[in-house]
Amino acid sequence: MPGKAYLYENVSQRLRHHIHEGSYRAGEKLPSVRVLSRLFQVSVNTILQCFRQLEADGLIHRIPRSGVFVAPTRSEQKPTTDVAPKPVPLLPVEVSLSEEILRYMEPYTSRPMLRFGIALPDSEIMPVERVLQTFRDVSRSDGLASWHYAHPRGEEAFAHQLARRSLNYPVPVTEQDLLVTNGCMEAIELALRVVTKPGDAVAIETPTYYGALLVLEVLGRKALPIPTHPRQGIRLAALEQVLRQGQVSACMISANAQNPLGFSMPTEQREKLARLAGRYRIPVIENDIWGDTVFGEAQLPVKAFDQEGEVIYCSSFSKSLMPGMRLGWIAPGRFLHRVLELKQVSNITTASAPQLVMARLMESGFYHHHLQQLRVHLQRQTRELMALSRQYFPVGTRINEPSGGCVLWLELPKPIDSGQLFDLALAQQIHIFPGRVFSPAGRHSHCLRLNAGSPVTSAIAAAVRKLGVLAHQQLT
Amino acid sequence: MPGKAYLYENVSQRLRHHIHEGSYRAGEKLPSVRVLSRLFQVSVNTILQCFRQLEADGLIHRIPRSGVFVAPTRSEQKPTTDVAPKPVPLLPVEVSLSEEILRYMEPYTSRPMLRFGIALPDSEIMPVERVLQTFRDVSRSDGLASWHYAHPRGEEAFAHQLARRSLNYPVPVTEQDLLVTNGCMEAIELALRVVTKPGDAVAIETPTYYGALLVLEVLGRKALPIPTHPRQGIRLAALEQVLRQGQVSACMISANAQNPLGFSMPTEQREKLARLAGRYRIPVIENDIWGDTVFGEAQLPVKAFDQEGEVIYCSSFSKSLMPGMRLGWIAPGRFLHRVLELKQVSNITTASAPQLVMARLMESGFYHHHLQQLRVHLQRQTRELMALSRQYFPVGTRINEPSGGCVLWLELPKPIDSGQLFDLALAQQIHIFPGRVFSPAGRHSHCLRLNAGSPVTSAIAAAVRKLGVLAHQQLT
Repeated sequence: MPGKAYLYENVSQRLRHHIHEGSYRAGEKLPSVRVLSRLFQVSVNTILQCFRQLEADGLIHRIPRSGVFVAPTRSEQKPTTDVAPKPVPLLPVEVSLSEEILRYMEPYTSRPMLRFGIALPDSEIMPVERVLQTFRDVSRSDGLASWHYAHPRGEEAFAHQLARRSLNYPVPVTEQDLLVTNGCMEAIELALRVVTKPGDAVAIETPTYYGALLVLEVLGRKALPIPTHPRQGIRLAALEQVLRQGQVSACMISANAQNPLGFSMPTEQREKLARLAGRYRIPVIENDIWGDTVFGEAQLPVKAFDQEGEVIYCSSFSKSLMPGMRLGWIAPGRFLHRVLELKQVSNITTASAPQLVMARLMESGFYHHHLQQLRVHLQRQTRELMALSRQYFPVGTRINEPSGGCVLWLELPKPIDSGQLFDLALAQQIHIFPGRVFSPAGRHSHCLRLNAGSPVTSAIAAAVRKLGVLAHQQLT
Repeated sequence: MPGKAYLYENVSQRLRHHIHEGSYRAGEKLPSVRVLSRLFQVSVNTILQCFRQLEADGLIHRIPRSGVFVAPTRSEQKPTTDVAPKPVPLLPVEVSLSEEILRYMEPYTSRPMLRFGIALPDSEIMPVERVLQTFRDVSRSDGLASWHYAHPRGEEAFAHQLARRSLNYPVPVTEQDLLVTNGCMEAIELALRVVTKPGDAVAIETPTYYGALLVLEVLGRKALPIPTHPRQGIRLAALEQVLRQGQVSACMISANAQNPLGFSMPTEQREKLARLAGRYRIPVIENDIWGDTVFGEAQLPVKAFDQEGEVIYCSSFSKSLMPGMRLGWIAPGRFLHRVLELKQVSNITTASAPQLVMARLMESGFYHHHLQQLRVHLQRQTRELMALSRQYFPVGTRINEPSGGCVLWLELPKPIDSGQLFDLALAQQIHIFPGRVFSPAGRHSHCLRLNAGSPVTSAIAAAVRKLGVLAHQQLT
């Protein structure tokens, strides 16, 4: 057991590090003594001792009855991930990650495990009973409708609700513009199959969701990673360069709560991206699976600004409600006819009951209400997990602050290899997802994605501590 | 209203025709007076009058307390579809039917209609309430399992039940050999994408299910139609010829209650086909969607004899139970790994609840019990619809006797074009499916497929009569 002096030094060092790295910026209020005491799992007195030390060092100042704030002299400090990235050659690469990805996915499904490796809100914070009750209601009052094949586009009542979501878009989506899919993954795969062919390259964010890389690999498409700003998203100047040079057949991005970085693009960037797609006639596949989880107010997707029909919007309810019902949708713009044709030969249509259930949950306003609660849960959980990560991971670890969703992206100090960390963690029944498979060229092997979908319990805190110990061991 | 003399002549003429065409062969028993009276919608006396006439003509003979039998002098007569087909060039063709197929499918989904165009047992003869009750049971006692993503292969309990079906196969399928899909169509599409590439040719039956042609077209594969015996299935000598010459990358067939012909392959043909696939290392995609509807005893599929892993078995519960749940499966033999990979990037996994429901319905024995009843319903309905069709369609019409499923395949006299008949019928709110889209080279434009999925009501009888009138009008 570490002694009290160790605890005090350790906590002080961590707080110092967070302030240096810009996790808490000049003028920002630090969490309360009580919260920090819980997060660092030390006594209130230890935290007060740290505060006295930091104040003496000029890093913080205390305002009675207001709280503790970061001192203004540190305002120049920014996280280094925020500066312009080093120039990288913008060239398409073959994706060859499937074996590695499947290896990292395997433990989730086969063994009991602390699940940091997934990216999914826990059913514990979901209105499970209400949704299951609605399934029962549908089976009673709409049983025959759920019995039969839905229209290939989807159930009308559901399509109606989906279209209604876009009423405030500058360019709204109508019921005739969309079709229902088996989750967001089917939407993305249909989009890719329609707008690209084997051998084509697709511009992607880096890092990006490994599933997007997997589908590129399995379909025999190349990836062209575009530098991506950790808070603003894909760099449009670099993207425009590859569009202008005709290097890609499509672009695949997320504007809301991107997985894994957690950023949401500024609105003007979204508008600009939609215009770029129109100007170069290169379709943008927008993966908006996390769109409904953005903290605070919902943001318009890129699709909202799509004058030319070049944006193929893909989303689902797997992250915001019930993954097991496999319910997503696609608004394919000018590619509607070919997407519908491919959907029909792929599986005729999507199951009826989940569509009827979601139509009810949306029509009654319940889904909207649920999202408000879900966002609060996810924001709290990501903040708490972030605080734990700051506490336990080595000095030099950078954590991107998510704007929605339920994952944290940790950049560990460079010598650390997250693939090795995966194996070490697995031996302790902890499942993490290594950063190395979030880019096709292995640029993120020192990174790590952690799931914040579950309420932060002592078991989770203990697991973060264990991960921190393993990371420290790797460093030394 | 036609007078009695007209009725008697009309019925006699039709019975004569059926005997000439071999619908009733030498020594076969005719339906009872009561049944014929109901089917022809004439009095018992009229039928008796017909019998007297036909007996005088030497066409039938009556055996007291046994029934009425076709006289032996007609034994040489066989349906002409049964003789060896004219030699056709065995060459791959581009499929270009999608516009026509979608036009024929459209009315089903958009307007109220008498639905002869579909191929689907009516929910009226299905245990709808029991299945919906099982959905409710699952949502109560297995709600959390239905909430979550299933394993990419499918829910274990369901896979277990699926594997159990093959216990009596010479080569059984294990739980590890199969994965769950969104209906049979997804199984077929995954299989085709894995074992063929754009431009490849696939050997098919002719006529075959238009959906199989549609998927070939959309995937850019060619079709190589192989002559198909109306009661024995694809001609293996012709198939072997194209396999030997390396003209195809795969073969796609149905061994049970084939759509549209309704045949079931003799067992020795199935075994031989499995051996051919192994010998030439050319995969056979077996569409067994109608397998559970074979009248009488269930037949082993071609997959049962698959020593080499070359048979990719595809099936679903859309025809035998609930189409709206979109639940199928695939046993891909040696292609398992690539099919699973493609399934995962296509839509991650299949919805959980329907799998848990089917697992229960199978485990309890309910599904087996249901199939026994379903087969009786379907057999009765197809027989009744066949009798009506014999009554109302022009002389020279041939009807294949189905061994399962719920469709009739009518070969009308050659001048008739079923595409025109489609339009004429549609104007009378009757939806039929024209034969012209059941082969890629338009060989079946005088044919017609009728759905026998519904109990034969007076509305259905009236619709068949109308169709018969339209066909007569086309002839004159």
